Amino acid sequence: MTPIEVDVAIIGAGSAGMSAYKAVRQHTERVLVIEQGPYGTTCARVGCMPSKLLIAAAEHAHAIAHGAPFGIRVAGMVVDGEAVMARVRRERDRFVGFVLETVEGWPAAHTLTGRARFVAPGVLAVGDTRVHAGRVIIATGAVPSVPPGWRDRLGDRLIVNDDVFDWTTLPASVAVVGTGVVGLELAQALHRLGVRVRLFGRSRRVGPLTDPALQAAVTHWIEATLPYSGNVGEPDVRRDGDGVVVTWQGADGEHSERFDYLLAAAGRAPDIAGLDLDKAGIPLDERGRPTFDPATCRIGDTPIFIAGDADNDRPVLHEAADDGRIAGHNAGRYPDVRAEPRRTALTIVFSDPQMAIAGASHAELTRHGTAFAHGEVSFADQGRARTMGRNLGTLRVYGSPADGRLLGAEIFGPDAEHLAHLLAWAIQRGDTVADALAAPFYHPVIEEGLRTALQRLAKALRNGG
Amino acid sequence: MTPIEVDVAIIGAGSAGMSAYKAVRQHTERVLVIEQGPYGTTCARVGCMPSKLLIAAAEHAHAIAHGAPFGIRVAGMVVDGEAVMARVRRERDRFVGFVLETVEGWPAAHTLTGRARFVAPGVLAVGDTRVHAGRVIIATGAVPSVPPGWRDRLGDRLIVNDDVFDWTTLPASVAVVGTGVVGLELAQALHRLGVRVRLFGRSRRVGPLTDPALQAAVTHWIEATLPYSGNVGEPDVRRDGDGVVVTWQGADGEHSERFDYLLAAAGRAPDIAGLDLDKAGIPLDERGRPTFDPATCRIGDTPIFIAGDADNDRPVLHEAADDGRIAGHNAGRYPDVRAEPRRTALTIVFSDPQMAIAGASHAELTRHGTAFAHGEVSFADQGRARTMGRNLGTLRVYGSPADGRLLGAEIFGPDAEHLAHLLAWAIQRGDTVADALAAPFYHPVIEEGLRTALQRLAKALRNGG
Repeated sequence: MTPIEVDVAIIGAGSAGMSAYKAVRQHTERVLVIEQGPYGTTCARVGCMPSKLLIAAAEHAHAIAHGAPFGIRVAGMVVDGEAVMARVRRERDRFVGFVLETVEGWPAAHTLTGRARFVAPGVLAVGDTRVHAGRVIIATGAVPSVPPGWRDRLGDRLIVNDDVFDWTTLPASVAVVGTGVVGLELAQALHRLGVRVRLFGRSRRVGPLTDPALQAAVTHWIEATLPYSGNVGEPDVRRDGDGVVVTWQGADGEHSERFDYLLAAAGRAPDIAGLDLDKAGIPLDERGRPTFDPATCRIGDTPIFIAGDADNDRPVLHEAADDGRIAGHNAGRYPDVRAEPRRTALTIVFSDPQMAIAGASHAELTRHGTAFAHGEVSFADQGRARTMGRNLGTLRVYGSPADGRLLGAEIFGPDAEHLAHLLAWAIQRGDTVADALAAPFYHPVIEEGLRTALQRLAKALRNGG
Repeated sequence: MTPIEVDVAIIGAGSAGMSAYKAVRQHTERVLVIEQGPYGTTCARVGCMPSKLLIAAAEHAHAIAHGAPFGIRVAGMVVDGEAVMARVRRERDRFVGFVLETVEGWPAAHTLTGRARFVAPGVLAVGDTRVHAGRVIIATGAVPSVPPGWRDRLGDRLIVNDDVFDWTTLPASVAVVGTGVVGLELAQALHRLGVRVRLFGRSRRVGPLTDPALQAAVTHWIEATLPYSGNVGEPDVRRDGDGVVVTWQGADGEHSERFDYLLAAAGRAPDIAGLDLDKAGIPLDERGRPTFDPATCRIGDTPIFIAGDADNDRPVLHEAADDGRIAGHNAGRYPDVRAEPRRTALTIVFSDPQMAIAGASHAELTRHGTAFAHGEVSFADQGRARTMGRNLGTLRVYGSPADGRLLGAEIFGPDAEHLAHLLAWAIQRGDTVADALAAPFYHPVIEEGLRTALQRLAKALRNGG
């Protein structure tokens, strides 16, 4: 077959690849997007959107089950699993539909279906087709990590988050292994929807927060809220008829429990194994992953770029879109490669209470040896949180003793997603604690909890950190 | 009786008066707080806090009644009016208790109970006692406005918002007259709690938003959501046994409806009538209200200051507290009167969807002849709003064609309270539209709706506003 020759080849048509394509086209029409599977992004198909749909149902069920303190009683709550999953799938399909509409608007010559692998620098094989590309953008995304052997042992009773959103009803029981974002969000949502859940943590750590005070608050909460077994290492799992039996060592000896499914939520890894990157002429680290510059998304000094979850750096949607834009422009106008400013870091877990990190985490400040003081607030007696019966959690905000600037914050509490935006924007502008305290705080709002923490941070900074 | 001589007299021990007292004491111990009634602030007793408690109950009832689209069904819901009001009063009393604790910590010589009136500049009468004060701070708050004659005609069936929070159960029916913040919040909350409500608007205007596009959205919503009769002028009201009959002219003729109570929510007016301000030696406007400088809270060139709702300017808690602080410091260190920067304006209505104004309103920009462009977003198809089933509302953000700076925003939509903080902080710092768009927006969040509006504003500004 005649080889295809393009200026830019993009491997993967997810969020990063689509964003890259849009940017590349501002520079050249000689572009090819290579996608191996069905179109649609991780976000829309199996990530952000369907998880928020499941969580919305779970929050309704939770509100209904907890109306009594407010004077609202209900008789006979029924979680109709088919109806719950029908809404999740219907709305998910709608979001995916928007993605497909976009892709369908692309010229046919700009897309190629198949699995791409490098055969030489600048040369890709896609089935029988050779693609010669001046520049390549790797935007293959990530796939759920499953411990070795589990798929063989558990068969179709081993599921990952992707599978959950294709359910046509809710199962009776699920073991969730992994206490990262995906594990936490799904375990809590399924639990609230009446599914018998047990959450297994391989270490003691729960969620992304790194401040020891926040980790303690989160651990205390998860132990009080969910059937939870932490620090179990890799539990023993085996197939048992139509189910799965998990055996683990607790503080008080060995336990076994049987579930309909085991949901492996042990993180996601870049989907780069089949790319034959060793033939791409790019620098790889000891794990075989490309080393790249986040300001340009360029791998070493090569014409190869990487964007989105494939780069294993900040695997969240808005960063993937930025990656794609930066990689796309740089690949499009290559060799004029420009460094772009990145946004202040922002991570959110849509648990209840939510978790969030804005700017630098406690671990990052510590790792970099940055001098910092903190201000803390508990939401236990925060006025607005208490009126809503959502008075649980802790917030810590970090500031610099050198110049009073805000450095970062870790949040476990109500409306953390909104507090995190407020803080991330303030950090990005270089605001000091005094700047933030001069801004308006309405009453009664959750933001007043942040004000208390900022006042304490100001005091700590006055007292020498 | 021997007159009391002090450096500073503060009339009123509400939020502004308490804040003023704290500031004055940084300068002098010769201070006297004069309070005529029971201690406790408008906010804690009858305002911010109890209304949020009632709204929290109403939101639970609403969530329970609207779980079906999410797949959650209930066989029956009971709103236990006694339990609803018991929580409202119990938590309200707790918030009031914190206020009382603060006041009880003051030296006895710093307080005087009674109604103060001016007898001459710098001289107050409180019962038989004369108070000679070098400076006076007027912090008497505001009282609900009731149309003339209504109290006589309706007796104890005429209530104001203050009365609602002393109910021991929910009534069967309430006519709410007035579509300001108080009327909207209470009418919706009572409606959701199963009380038969009709909301009467004297004009066509509903709520504080001023942008014609937002007013239209709010009016459309209220008509679809609540029994609502707008533009009725002053309805005819009469007592009928244990109830009230309201008669009004609709577009299709005259209507009458009977209710257990009529809630007059026709705004609040400064509580200054009994102060005999004409003897205070201060400048008054044509309505008999003092003219003052918000930067100093000083009335004219006199040693009299005014703070909080009594000044009829920005009658919200956080501004009242700022007023008190500014007036307190200036009265305390008089004649060294200093102008203090005020915070960016921020108003929030805790309806559902919420309403908010951050920075300048559409009406203010228009009144001042400020050049501005707008960017708009509808929440109808906003991703996160849709996942939660809260996809209703519109946001408009205003920017300056001269320098791209954000000027203000009006919001009717989900989580408006949080979007309004984000915008007010950005406006206070002088952020441009480009600055805001460079900040992080997570996914999927309501803030992405704001981003869409900002992108449209940026385009409008590029196209010449």
